[in-house]
Amino acid sequence: MRLAEAAALVGGRVAGDGAVEVSGVAGLREAGPGDLAFLSRAIYAPLLASTRAAAVVAANEIPGARMPILVVKDPEAAMTRIAAAFAPPLPRPEPGVHRSASVDPTAALGEGVSVGPAAVVEAGARIGARTEIRAGASVGRGARVGADCRLDPGARVAEGVVLGDRVVIGANAVVGSDGFGFLPAGPGKVPMRVPQTGSVVVEDDVDIGAGACVARARFGKTVVGRGAKIDNLVQVAHNCRIGDGAIVAALTGLAGSTVVGEGSLLGGQVGTSGHIEIGAGARIAGQSGVTRDIPAGETWAGTAARPHREWQRETAALRMLPGLIERLRRLEKAAAEEE
Amino acid sequence: MRLAEAAALVGGRVAGDGAVEVSGVAGLREAGPGDLAFLSRAIYAPLLASTRAAAVVAANEIPGARMPILVVKDPEAAMTRIAAAFAPPLPRPEPGVHRSASVDPTAALGEGVSVGPAAVVEAGARIGARTEIRAGASVGRGARVGADCRLDPGARVAEGVVLGDRVVIGANAVVGSDGFGFLPAGPGKVPMRVPQTGSVVVEDDVDIGAGACVARARFGKTVVGRGAKIDNLVQVAHNCRIGDGAIVAALTGLAGSTVVGEGSLLGGQVGTSGHIEIGAGARIAGQSGVTRDIPAGETWAGTAARPHREWQRETAALRMLPGLIERLRRLEKAAAEEE
Amino acid sequence: MRLAEAAALVGGRVAGDGAVEVSGVAGLREAGPGDLAFLSRAIYAPLLASTRAAAVVAANEIPGARMPILVVKDPEAAMTRIAAAFAPPLPRPEPGVHRSASVDPTAALGEGVSVGPAAVVEAGARIGARTEIRAGASVGRGARVGADCRLDPGARVAEGVVLGDRVVIGANAVVGSDGFGFLPAGPGKVPMRVPQTGSVVVEDDVDIGAGACVARARFGKTVVGRGAKIDNLVQVAHNCRIGDGAIVAALTGLAGSTVVGEGSLLGGQVGTSGHIEIGAGARIAGQSGVTRDIPAGETWAGTAARPHREWQRETAALRMLPGLIERLRRLEKAAAEEE
Repeated sequence: MRLAEAAALVGGRVAGDGAVEVSGVAGLREAGPGDLAFLSRAIYAPLLASTRAAAVVAANEIPGARMPILVVKDPEAAMTRIAAAFAPPLPRPEPGVHRSASVDPTAALGEGVSVGPAAVVEAGARIGARTEIRAGASVGRGARVGADCRLDPGARVAEGVVLGDRVVIGANAVVGSDGFGFLPAGPGKVPMRVPQTGSVVVEDDVDIGAGACVARARFGKTVVGRGAKIDNLVQVAHNCRIGDGAIVAALTGLAGSTVVGEGSLLGGQVGTSGHIEIGAGARIAGQSGVTRDIPAGETWAGTAARPHREWQRETAALRMLPGLIERLRRLEKAAAEEE
Repeated sequence: MRLAEAAALVGGRVAGDGAVEVSGVAGLREAGPGDLAFLSRAIYAPLLASTRAAAVVAANEIPGARMPILVVKDPEAAMTRIAAAFAPPLPRPEPGVHRSASVDPTAALGEGVSVGPAAVVEAGARIGARTEIRAGASVGRGARVGADCRLDPGARVAEGVVLGDRVVIGANAVVGSDGFGFLPAGPGKVPMRVPQTGSVVVEDDVDIGAGACVARARFGKTVVGRGAKIDNLVQVAHNCRIGDGAIVAALTGLAGSTVVGEGSLLGGQVGTSGHIEIGAGARIAGQSGVTRDIPAGETWAGTAARPHREWQRETAALRMLPGLIERLRRLEKAAAEEE
Repeated sequence: MRLAEAAALVGGRVAGDGAVEVSGVAGLREAGPGDLAFLSRAIYAPLLASTRAAAVVAANEIPGARMPILVVKDPEAAMTRIAAAFAPPLPRPEPGVHRSASVDPTAALGEGVSVGPAAVVEAGARIGARTEIRAGASVGRGARVGADCRLDPGARVAEGVVLGDRVVIGANAVVGSDGFGFLPAGPGKVPMRVPQTGSVVVEDDVDIGAGACVARARFGKTVVGRGAKIDNLVQVAHNCRIGDGAIVAALTGLAGSTVVGEGSLLGGQVGTSGHIEIGAGARIAGQSGVTRDIPAGETWAGTAARPHREWQRETAALRMLPGLIERLRRLEKAAAEEE
């Protein structure tokens, strides 16, 4: 692809030679001689001196650059569109059941379903059209998987779980593990298991990351709302409700019955206490520990989490604290001398 | 089931019409017209106005409630018992080895064992009576699994690991991964692997959650004591000893040789330094970082963890700190003016 | 083995009876009568009174010890060497493809490769000599795995991923999951998936722990450098670069494009913001939240992370804060009385 063609594709313009050929996309550091790279943040500009990229996508012209620049308002979005143009169409697996797969005779497979090697579909499960169940993944008894879904290798959809359409379950993720519920017993006795008889409903267009776990409800259901995006190694406990379009970053743990508002954004390694509610559109900084309800639209941080502005003020004050102690000592000394 | 029957089952009484039929249990929010819901905490009382539940379990009568109330001392325990009465008996899989499973001829299976599709039992392993090994799970060479256990889909029991009776290993959990041990090497050299020749012993009635990892000992053994309950995505490093009946919540990471006292309770995302000891019955707040021994029966919090009361006092003081700085400035100014 | 032989093996000397027989290694607590134990830290010396070990490895003579002491400069390294001498040689599986495994006809297996039960090698994948692919593990289309690697049960190597030689992928770990990239959409709309068209390169001698996840790059590649050691349940996001010999402890989460310098050491449950760089040889305390670049060789701690010395000073000051408030009150009172 010529650079000028890439520019046309994304509504940008070329500063420099638009006839340059680009054959792939790459980071500034890794780019080879035929690659198009991009300058995501101004602080990376020094890398322009050393990159081997043939051309660079950026938000502004770059005076003195050694290579042509594709100038476009949103370089990140542009790069994504160009990458998609280069991306070889993912070779869709042949529909059909691999000879090493195991599909129970009472399961129902839609048109064009692909069941990969060593994959398993158990009794009574229903799989929607064109869904891919990859190597070693499994779908439990009576589960329902929608159309155009993808279950990556080793993904586990437990018995009775319901997935909508266009859902992606990452490799070795688990949807429908038992909820963690035990009644304490006396000393020397074993805690009693509380039956976890509920299920999980995952709505359309949800992504659940590799290694993530979503527990079934104690009763009723755990819900992951339409278009929600759950990153790798996230724990969603029993009876949580994740709102539509919410984004939850890696290693976050949501305790039982947490409600995550629609369109909210949780950083990585956030933890929540049980039964709290995060309002729609709220943003929670990474590693926060949320112990009470958060109003819609607010940004919170810290453990225990509080409004981000408070957290910042306190953190800044803490930085000054060693100096404050010294100042306090001086005042005390002066007061003592006065007496 | 009539509400009066449910009340008899749990030793409660009905305020209102005991003849109402209930056909399932659900949360207040999700309940449909035939469901029995429960009021777990007083602050959820406003939901009573909007729930569609046919009846509600609560600790007290609720004046003005639109539906009959099943009043019982411990609503949570009562609900659990009623849920169990409604829970369809889990369809136990047929005993036997699925045609797509792989059981080594030198492995020994007890009476009534079920080995699911694509599951694996390797050479010399022994599986106790009535144990279920579900789809895609595997048991390594020479491992011993007790009676009445359940290995959920994709669970991995590594070579030589020993599980007691009635143990549940969650989906895609790993028991017996290599311990993480390396000797640092000089610059440019690769850290040396320390052989991890020990094993893991998991005692009777233990639950290990989905995606959790328990590493084998460097030498000797990693032990998970009788009745301990380990939540999803927990990391238990080499040579840890988890006491009987301890409860460890999701995403907690126990470093090498941590000792967790019996009956202790660790919140989610707790971390520990290596070689420390948490006393029996101690309680550790979520996200705490434990860097030294904790006496039996105490409650600790924070990073580095300290007694919960200290942590609370310091946290409250931190909230006041920005204001304190202002007050200190005023004192300094007054002192300067005096001079 | 006689104790004197063990001493010769590690260049140590025996204080006491070198003719004592030792038949295994164990921790001080767990050692039986024929075991060799070791005193890793002086604070464990009280255990010497109660251990049943036949002999003990230590850095110094121990006056009054009931058993002979093998004195050696580095007891830990010595113990490792002795443990290796005792460790039964791991029974290497027979080379060949298990009858329940699935190897695509277009895949290429090197000499002596072992593909275990229910394992999968997909189209176009290439597996180097003597590599073991254990029960239920899978290698995706076009992936390349080097020689002498080990893929533990349920490990997932996704399509197109490249592994060097002597790489170990832990049980149920995932290398090459989709990167977590979404473009926010308007209210009520579903976030758009950003194509993740890059790959992952794992260099020679890397260990990746059980349940860990390494995401493929958005474009270009995610790199785990030579000899790096990644613990269980670690998340490595798209486009990260882990330096040679870096050590990353359990449950740490590296956000997109994090650069981890060679030989650096990250504690457990560390989190990083995207696009930051940790210098070579830096050390990050467990549970730290890294939000900006860290210079080479420094030790940092806390959330947001700062130099360890600052963190310590601030933490110590925080401990004093409740008392400071009282002192400030007294000064204010005295000042008020003066007026």
